[in-house]
Amino acid sequence: MERENEIPKDKIREYAPWRRTLHDTIFGYHTWQGRFFDLALLVAILLSVLMIMLESVNSINDEYGEIIRIIEVTFTAIFTLEYVARIISHPKPIKYVLSFMGIVDFLSILPTYLMLLSIGTSSFAILRSIRLIRVFRILKLTRYMFGARELQNALWNSRHKIVVFLGSVLCIVVVMGTLLYMVEGEEHGFTSIPTSIYWAIVTLTTVGYGDIAPETVLGQGIASAIMIMGYAILAVPTGIVTGEIVNEKRRQGMNKCQRCQSITTRDDANYCYKCGERLPASN
Amino acid sequence: MERENEIPKDKIREYAPWRRTLHDTIFGYHTWQGRFFDLALLVAILLSVLMIMLESVNSINDEYGEIIRIIEVTFTAIFTLEYVARIISHPKPIKYVLSFMGIVDFLSILPTYLMLLSIGTSSFAILRSIRLIRVFRILKLTRYMFGARELQNALWNSRHKIVVFLGSVLCIVVVMGTLLYMVEGEEHGFTSIPTSIYWAIVTLTTVGYGDIAPETVLGQGIASAIMIMGYAILAVPTGIVTGEIVNEKRRQGMNKCQRCQSITTRDDANYCYKCGERLPASN
Amino acid sequence: MERENEIPKDKIREYAPWRRTLHDTIFGYHTWQGRFFDLALLVAILLSVLMIMLESVNSINDEYGEIIRIIEVTFTAIFTLEYVARIISHPKPIKYVLSFMGIVDFLSILPTYLMLLSIGTSSFAILRSIRLIRVFRILKLTRYMFGARELQNALWNSRHKIVVFLGSVLCIVVVMGTLLYMVEGEEHGFTSIPTSIYWAIVTLTTVGYGDIAPETVLGQGIASAIMIMGYAILAVPTGIVTGEIVNEKRRQGMNKCQRCQSITTRDDANYCYKCGERLPASN
Amino acid sequence: MERENEIPKDKIREYAPWRRTLHDTIFGYHTWQGRFFDLALLVAILLSVLMIMLESVNSINDEYGEIIRIIEVTFTAIFTLEYVARIISHPKPIKYVLSFMGIVDFLSILPTYLMLLSIGTSSFAILRSIRLIRVFRILKLTRYMFGARELQNALWNSRHKIVVFLGSVLCIVVVMGTLLYMVEGEEHGFTSIPTSIYWAIVTLTTVGYGDIAPETVLGQGIASAIMIMGYAILAVPTGIVTGEIVNEKRRQGMNKCQRCQSITTRDDANYCYKCGERLPASN
Repeated sequence: MERENEIPKDKIREYAPWRRTLHDTIFGYHTWQGRFFDLALLVAILLSVLMIMLESVNSINDEYGEIIRIIEVTFTAIFTLEYVARIISHPKPIKYVLSFMGIVDFLSILPTYLMLLSIGTSSFAILRSIRLIRVFRILKLTRYMFGARELQNALWNSRHKIVVFLGSVLCIVVVMGTLLYMVEGEEHGFTSIPTSIYWAIVTLTTVGYGDIAPETVLGQGIASAIMIMGYAILAVPTGIVTGEIVNEKRRQGMNKCQRCQSITTRDDANYCYKCGERLPASN
Repeated sequence: MERENEIPKDKIREYAPWRRTLHDTIFGYHTWQGRFFDLALLVAILLSVLMIMLESVNSINDEYGEIIRIIEVTFTAIFTLEYVARIISHPKPIKYVLSFMGIVDFLSILPTYLMLLSIGTSSFAILRSIRLIRVFRILKLTRYMFGARELQNALWNSRHKIVVFLGSVLCIVVVMGTLLYMVEGEEHGFTSIPTSIYWAIVTLTTVGYGDIAPETVLGQGIASAIMIMGYAILAVPTGIVTGEIVNEKRRQGMNKCQRCQSITTRDDANYCYKCGERLPASN
Repeated sequence: MERENEIPKDKIREYAPWRRTLHDTIFGYHTWQGRFFDLALLVAILLSVLMIMLESVNSINDEYGEIIRIIEVTFTAIFTLEYVARIISHPKPIKYVLSFMGIVDFLSILPTYLMLLSIGTSSFAILRSIRLIRVFRILKLTRYMFGARELQNALWNSRHKIVVFLGSVLCIVVVMGTLLYMVEGEEHGFTSIPTSIYWAIVTLTTVGYGDIAPETVLGQGIASAIMIMGYAILAVPTGIVTGEIVNEKRRQGMNKCQRCQSITTRDDANYCYKCGERLPASN
Repeated sequence: MERENEIPKDKIREYAPWRRTLHDTIFGYHTWQGRFFDLALLVAILLSVLMIMLESVNSINDEYGEIIRIIEVTFTAIFTLEYVARIISHPKPIKYVLSFMGIVDFLSILPTYLMLLSIGTSSFAILRSIRLIRVFRILKLTRYMFGARELQNALWNSRHKIVVFLGSVLCIVVVMGTLLYMVEGEEHGFTSIPTSIYWAIVTLTTVGYGDIAPETVLGQGIASAIMIMGYAILAVPTGIVTGEIVNEKRRQGMNKCQRCQSITTRDDANYCYKCGERLPASN
């Protein structure tokens, strides 16, 4: 897990015992406390988000609104404690507060306090928006996904191809959307170029809501061309990601040179490709 | 086929001849009886499920209901015999009864008996549900899919990536669903956060029913972003599975030379590609 | 092109000159006549199918029906000549007549003759069906696709996985369709199990017409699960086909042993993996 | 970047200093002027296309039409200057004018001049079409995508497979469209064969608008078959593109040992993995 590597270890060794235990519980995952904390937090996030969702259902809110609000305040208290504990036990508190996870942790408790403060003073619409922002608490889950370095590498290595891909998609949907706007016109639902581009995106990505659909023969012909093209376009990001994953796999678990730490991709290599050192026999 | 390997062979050798023949017919596939039994069971499962399906069509049930129910009872009798025969001929009957396939075999005969018992005493709704449970007989088909170890391995090896993938999908649909609920509101069909999340899933997976669709310009813009993102997201599981299949293929039939330790990638190789040494016969 | 390899060459050498030229024109593609014939046939097939399509559009049929029918008879005459010429010039006429392409060639001329014979005697409905069968002339195009042996091999090598895949899809759609039929019931469009299974297929394949869509919260939840599952399911055939194509690519253009014709997959092989013969240095 | 390689360098060395600076700014990207020009042009294209889109929205056009038209004329002036500068500074002006990018550059300024000329003389419909042609300015973006040689190679290497794939799709949609036209008929929306083929394309590509959907049991059965087939079909282009990308990756940075002829798959290898010989520096 990366988050531990990013923390200077020697600084933590100088901590007071209670602070060190707190740090190990929150940021570590080797002790049973650390594992329990991770699991409890995961459950708290999911339950808290579930509560906010249920609150938005009118029939549930009317009946259980009071209970939901009490649970909600409890969860906010828990997350506030967690936030304070993270600041106290982190060796570089300011760095944490300004990090992506720090901001997410802060924003996940802020709305409840704003709501408590603003009762009676704000309008209903603003209150409603603030209440909904709490759903973004789900982003606290990203903390559990840092293990996926591999996927991040695959995406980063393919950044040039992704830009080309998005640029091509942009060109296709603008050209096709405009063509359909010319051919179909406002009477068939293609009321403006932005709307037509929205339709082209809905079609190219094979979502196909059907709220807007071509009705003339020419429009249907052009739409068919976009759909077939969508196939080829769909293949490109899949090919990129798959290519990277296959590549990554080949690189993993290969022979490592004991002099220069280089990794050899051939499983039958006798010598390090970089420094020429003889390699140990692979299994 | 795995199921035979899981059975202790020496125990079967001590069976009475009739019980051994029964065992070979039901669990084996080397004798012509075994092959015939497999084929007959496959046909019986498919026909039986077809009958239950047809029974649910009102017009067919009104006219041929009686015939269907007679056929249905016959199939239940056949499956009961099969279940009893499996218990008798299995070296570890209790293990079989508690296994996944044992439970499926039991549940595929239970509903008909419950129905026969409960006539006159239960309500129509419960009867209907019980009748429908019989469709899960189709799960008896999974018996024929154990050969797909390769795919199961691929899935198991990728479990970490799959969790990250599902977590990411969860975060995206919760955030996007809430955003659209804020932007579109109840008047455009986004009546609650759960409904909006359902819409986000329908969109991200490119299903796109069109029962709920954004109508404001901002909503359509955010929806477009989800669709394009859906592309990249779609690429990840495909990449994972493909990567595993390509890898599995490479790993299969690797043959190691005993003189020079080279690994040959062809499973039908007789000689080392590097030093010409004769290879041991691969399994 | 395979079709030439399938024909015994020595028999053709004994042909009369005119018959040999005819054979080379129709089955060969090395002479300019052969290439011209291939191109002309391709254009004739596409134009002929286009005519039948246009005939089905009421407004076009009312105005240009006569012209279309004249063109149609001309094309039938051309295809009849082609069929006769193929029979005459093929070294094994009966084998050709009974082959897939022979049957397609015959069926593409039959309907027009049946129509000419049956005027006045048959009902309109049968006539209409016969007329439409001619569209299957498009299958004559498959003649131009035999080069794709590679893809056919890929599919054949994966036949076991494809069966498992289709079996899994069958199990999922039957179970999910029945579940949704229980949950949603007839009042929300899920009128019978077959209809519900149709809905499950529409959803799992991400087509999503929206003619049937779940309306209860539980139904939408189960539907969401199918959609996410559809992602993983979609990945399997893609992975299979991609794995085969990547594999096929690796096998192509590799070192060939001059003694036993085996193809070595390693580009750095020194010895044949099968017979141990020293290989020529690869480029 | 390829575009520079296509320009004879010695001819540019003989340019007058101002012309050489102009050339380096427009066609080069090594100097800060070149980079600034590229960025400014990118922003200008995107803004200009955005203006034309907004103009097509009635409510925006009514209020801000005047401002949009002034901005539009400004952008046209900028693109005219760019076009003239490209002609002046290009070593082979005629070749540029007739190239794909030259034509796109010309067409992106033409409509505005035609509009200015034709006011009062042309009908509204023609004017509207001319105004919309300007959206194709987005194609100027393709200038930034030439880096994707790799993808172009992948497509070109797969051209035979792509033709076979498109041919198969054509056969499937024609046969399936006609079948559904026979089965469903005009009363269920399948009004003609072209419309039915349009439906088959919408279904096979998993777009699924739902504007036309089968209603009979037989029609739904055939539609289900197309959808499942769509899965397998979808896998083919993905497999092709992925296979090419994986292959391309393997081919890149292959390094050959001059002593033992082994090919090293790592592009950063310094020593042969087999015999330890120092490798020549790769480009």
